[in-house]
Amino acid sequence: MNETNPPSTPLLDAIAHPHDVAQLPRAQLPVLAQELRDEILDIVSETGGHLGASLGVIELTIALHYVYNSPHDRIIWDVGHQCYAHKLLTGRRELMRNLRKQGGASGFPLMRESPHDAFGTAHSSTSLSAAIGMAEAMKLRGEDTRHVIAVIGDGAMSAGMAYEALNNASNVNLKVVLNDNAMSISPPTGAMNDYLRALQRLAGGGAVQVGLKHGKAIGKKAKEVLPAPIGALAKSVGSQFAQAIANRIDHSTWFEALGVEYHGPVDGHNIGVLIECLQAMRDGKTGEGTTGHSPQLLHALTMKGKGYAPAEQAPDRLHAVAALDKVGVGTQPAPTNQASFSSVLGGYLCEAATTHPNLVVVTPAMLSGSGLNGFHRQFPNRCYDVGIAEQHAVTFAAGLACEGILPMMCIYSTFLQRAYDQVVHDVALQHLPVRFIVDRAGYVGADGATHAGCYDLSMVTPLEGALVCSASDGKTLATLLKAVLLWDSGPSFLRFARGTTVPCDDFTAIPAAEVGKAEVRIEGESVAIFALGSRVGAALAAAESVLQQHGWSPTVVDARFVKPHDQDLVGELLKSHRAIVIVEDATGAGLAHQIRQATPVAQHGQLRSLQMPESYIHHAATEEQYRQAGLDAEAIAAEVLNCR
Amino acid sequence: MNETNPPSTPLLDAIAHPHDVAQLPRAQLPVLAQELRDEILDIVSETGGHLGASLGVIELTIALHYVYNSPHDRIIWDVGHQCYAHKLLTGRRELMRNLRKQGGASGFPLMRESPHDAFGTAHSSTSLSAAIGMAEAMKLRGEDTRHVIAVIGDGAMSAGMAYEALNNASNVNLKVVLNDNAMSISPPTGAMNDYLRALQRLAGGGAVQVGLKHGKAIGKKAKEVLPAPIGALAKSVGSQFAQAIANRIDHSTWFEALGVEYHGPVDGHNIGVLIECLQAMRDGKTGEGTTGHSPQLLHALTMKGKGYAPAEQAPDRLHAVAALDKVGVGTQPAPTNQASFSSVLGGYLCEAATTHPNLVVVTPAMLSGSGLNGFHRQFPNRCYDVGIAEQHAVTFAAGLACEGILPMMCIYSTFLQRAYDQVVHDVALQHLPVRFIVDRAGYVGADGATHAGCYDLSMVTPLEGALVCSASDGKTLATLLKAVLLWDSGPSFLRFARGTTVPCDDFTAIPAAEVGKAEVRIEGESVAIFALGSRVGAALAAAESVLQQHGWSPTVVDARFVKPHDQDLVGELLKSHRAIVIVEDATGAGLAHQIRQATPVAQHGQLRSLQMPESYIHHAATEEQYRQAGLDAEAIAAEVLNCR
Repeated sequence: MNETNPPSTPLLDAIAHPHDVAQLPRAQLPVLAQELRDEILDIVSETGGHLGASLGVIELTIALHYVYNSPHDRIIWDVGHQCYAHKLLTGRRELMRNLRKQGGASGFPLMRESPHDAFGTAHSSTSLSAAIGMAEAMKLRGEDTRHVIAVIGDGAMSAGMAYEALNNASNVNLKVVLNDNAMSISPPTGAMNDYLRALQRLAGGGAVQVGLKHGKAIGKKAKEVLPAPIGALAKSVGSQFAQAIANRIDHSTWFEALGVEYHGPVDGHNIGVLIECLQAMRDGKTGEGTTGHSPQLLHALTMKGKGYAPAEQAPDRLHAVAALDKVGVGTQPAPTNQASFSSVLGGYLCEAATTHPNLVVVTPAMLSGSGLNGFHRQFPNRCYDVGIAEQHAVTFAAGLACEGILPMMCIYSTFLQRAYDQVVHDVALQHLPVRFIVDRAGYVGADGATHAGCYDLSMVTPLEGALVCSASDGKTLATLLKAVLLWDSGPSFLRFARGTTVPCDDFTAIPAAEVGKAEVRIEGESVAIFALGSRVGAALAAAESVLQQHGWSPTVVDARFVKPHDQDLVGELLKSHRAIVIVEDATGAGLAHQIRQATPVAQHGQLRSLQMPESYIHHAATEEQYRQAGLDAEAIAAEVLNCR
Repeated sequence: MNETNPPSTPLLDAIAHPHDVAQLPRAQLPVLAQELRDEILDIVSETGGHLGASLGVIELTIALHYVYNSPHDRIIWDVGHQCYAHKLLTGRRELMRNLRKQGGASGFPLMRESPHDAFGTAHSSTSLSAAIGMAEAMKLRGEDTRHVIAVIGDGAMSAGMAYEALNNASNVNLKVVLNDNAMSISPPTGAMNDYLRALQRLAGGGAVQVGLKHGKAIGKKAKEVLPAPIGALAKSVGSQFAQAIANRIDHSTWFEALGVEYHGPVDGHNIGVLIECLQAMRDGKTGEGTTGHSPQLLHALTMKGKGYAPAEQAPDRLHAVAALDKVGVGTQPAPTNQASFSSVLGGYLCEAATTHPNLVVVTPAMLSGSGLNGFHRQFPNRCYDVGIAEQHAVTFAAGLACEGILPMMCIYSTFLQRAYDQVVHDVALQHLPVRFIVDRAGYVGADGATHAGCYDLSMVTPLEGALVCSASDGKTLATLLKAVLLWDSGPSFLRFARGTTVPCDDFTAIPAAEVGKAEVRIEGESVAIFALGSRVGAALAAAESVLQQHGWSPTVVDARFVKPHDQDLVGELLKSHRAIVIVEDATGAGLAHQIRQATPVAQHGQLRSLQMPESYIHHAATEEQYRQAGLDAEAIAAEVLNCR
């Protein structure tokens, strides 16, 4: 598949701009959908990517571009990994051949990539707030012919940010498509999901067979598509309620309570139905309560992975895949003999749970990504996946810790940003021993700048009494996990990289790391490299390269602890070495900051610091990102030689 | 009033523990309420504090301690400034005489202060998540006789965190009291508030006259206290719905949609009604859907400032007051001839709005605190108070900026923590020119450690392309405001302290500050103090003290810009001075970090840094807090003399 282009796809070949979609006869749109599906499969089979979500919104994407006029109208794709069909319809077919690779298309909407990417969306649940901002801007500027449409998934509806936005949408010309595939990354949890399922049942629907009748029922409220007698009853109730109370209170749905007009549910794979609904929303031909400025929401039922049997059947509907064999059964490449850090974590937690009966896991929708599926199977009552709800997750863990439970708060570095105030105010200020297991620290490769774990050290290192450490490999991860379990005077943060490491099978043989002790990996001379996390490997490679080329080796230390760090060792190295090069896969106040604060100013001239630059580094292979950042083995070796 | 204790209060004198409340005859409880009200007024008239909220929950506090068994049961007060009566009933009357003063009671629940403070709550909307964590912990530990009660205000319900928690409350033995005073800090906004008002009207209620009949209607659903015929209709609808759909879907309220049993609204100042309701919730004698594990919510209508006429009549119901004259009309002390930084901000924005037609203000419930009431009156359509919803506020501002509007995002430093991911992902990564006006940077005095603005520099300084600056006085604030308005290539952050400064009346005479240029305030010798924000005043005082005592003066620089900082000046000072002492009212990666990164390592021995320590500094006068932090004039002078 590498040597030839995909087979010519006549309809798609003629689409250079979304205007071209609207020129197609309606009857051809399902053909276009099939072409898009084939093309996405073809691309992702080579590049990897978020397959399931993008396959699920192909019909919706076509309908949106058929009805709305991008970029004059603004279409915002929440958690943008649903955007592949959108990118293919907006002039980026060539770029998409190198999806998520250096120089290729980003896996997420990116404003600098195309005017059709109205907002950069890679973290979840931001679309409604951004859309309300745009709609208000249009109101302020008197641009009353423009529309803003946010497409948000049901999984994203668990985040508080989405609720905050709906609470502020009154009198805003906002259109929302709720893309409900009954699944975010893992199978969903939470009351809102139960509620959406009940709405679906209420409408008498199975998975995706439910729909409004073409061109008729469109724009009416949920109660008008309900089977009698419930439908009739609901309608009657609605009107009597309307007499008795303000218009804003229509109890028919949760959304109406917030002043949002609800339409649906409809079949999100029926292009005709979607076009009618979207046109009616655009033209304001909606329910009785419409003022022209009420926010409106269309509830569309879709299937993640739609149209690709292996995806439809996988438990996570192939949320994110490496390159895969689309011709065969969609098997993802077999794992190598390397383990991921996440899998070491999962293995250790299963073992620790047996000896620590109070140990529980809390994660905001990162069960699978954090290697916790096994833990969840083995200890379902001690594993809390709260959905995409980082703020709640952290303070929930704080509440558990108040009552003597040992919460392991598993979260990615980039998403810890979502809960910074909760880390500060609800955990650190309360001196609560919540253990933060921070995955995906440092650069993360194909997911690009939006998912890089740059800021966690700068966030948490200044916190009073925090233990902060980082694992350079699987065995170090295990020894540090044991150390944080013993740290009960306040919060602890154990970070590690996305990627593979040596497996760690026998946890019992590994003792808990001594808090604040670094590990000397190479005893060398003249210059010491004090490296953290993923940079330990690069430091060892740099030392090897210096040895090969110059006949001497610098000392290499795995710092392990950022706070408290090994200042005794730093003091010794300052005496015996000309300089210390501190290398960390983070930016801001981290390891170098801690070492400088503890070192007499007179010796600061011996301290050099390499850390992530402030500039954002876009999608590329992880090691290429570190090369661009000046943090790879070559750059470390150059710095070492500078100090010699 | 200073020289004597308040008049003896017989009931209160006998209450050393909340158990004692339950021993009182029911008929005496209103007397106790009056005593508490008098005592709180007496305290706050001398110390200042959050008066309105605490006056509003006196009856509720008595009822909670009458029914529940603290600390065995856990009572969590959301945005804890409602806690004054609670503190008085839990053995802290003496401590309360020095409320919010050094060594006195904190203005918020504080776990280290009392076992009755189940969770430290000072930021809003955290109570539900913490309570769910505690309830889950009790379930895991098999402690089935304990209860967790969260008291949350209607204002706090606008924050996404509260929704995230409700979405995760299924099958949790959680009791919630929604303390609805129809007001958070400023009059409330948002759809949820409209909805609560409609529920109140639906029940036929005025402000606080609504209530269930004693001992009868308790524990039934909203529909059962509705006036006929709506009540009857709702009841009938409920049962038919129940046949047709899952139990979880009961459309009677927004809360039921999330699986939360709703009771109310009831009169939150009727102790008898409250006791009956709370007992029924405790004992599980509630509505038909009860499984014993559904979360239950009691909607109590209260009046902020209840029982104190000047508070009841003030527009913000005397949310937070300085010491006041309780005997007279509740007038707060007259302003001095100093202006607050916030008032300079408000004045400037009113002027700038006339010359910048696209300028708007966005604030998450900090309209009054940020000095924006005047702007709101003058430009109501360009002033967005989104309620307590920091995440939405920031991304909403990002959306505005996408479409060419100039959003001034006014927020306190401590609350910027609530929106860190939105700052990183939705603003900085998108290179959007959102202007963050960060009030309350540095220590904030009586509000204590929870509200200190310590982390904002460390959060935002590492962001690519960010402009970061800090104002030392009113005129500098004006010149920096003009500079950030011109900065349109990415986000900007202008921070300043809580407190007073020289007023600034004539904005037209003040030019925009040159980006990256510091201001030399004293040309001295030998040692230069490079000070930021509030520390400029302390640096000037330190210089004066050195001059008086030692006959020479150090150079004093107002750094103004953290990023880009004035490295040219730093370079010159490094040549002409022995050392530079960098002083900042922040911690982590801020001004010193930026200067070090730009200075050749060989000169690092000349750089010294004073910044906020990692240890939390509790409520005290602001300058006392800086003294404890080693950042006052005396500490700066000592560091200068060290370097000489």
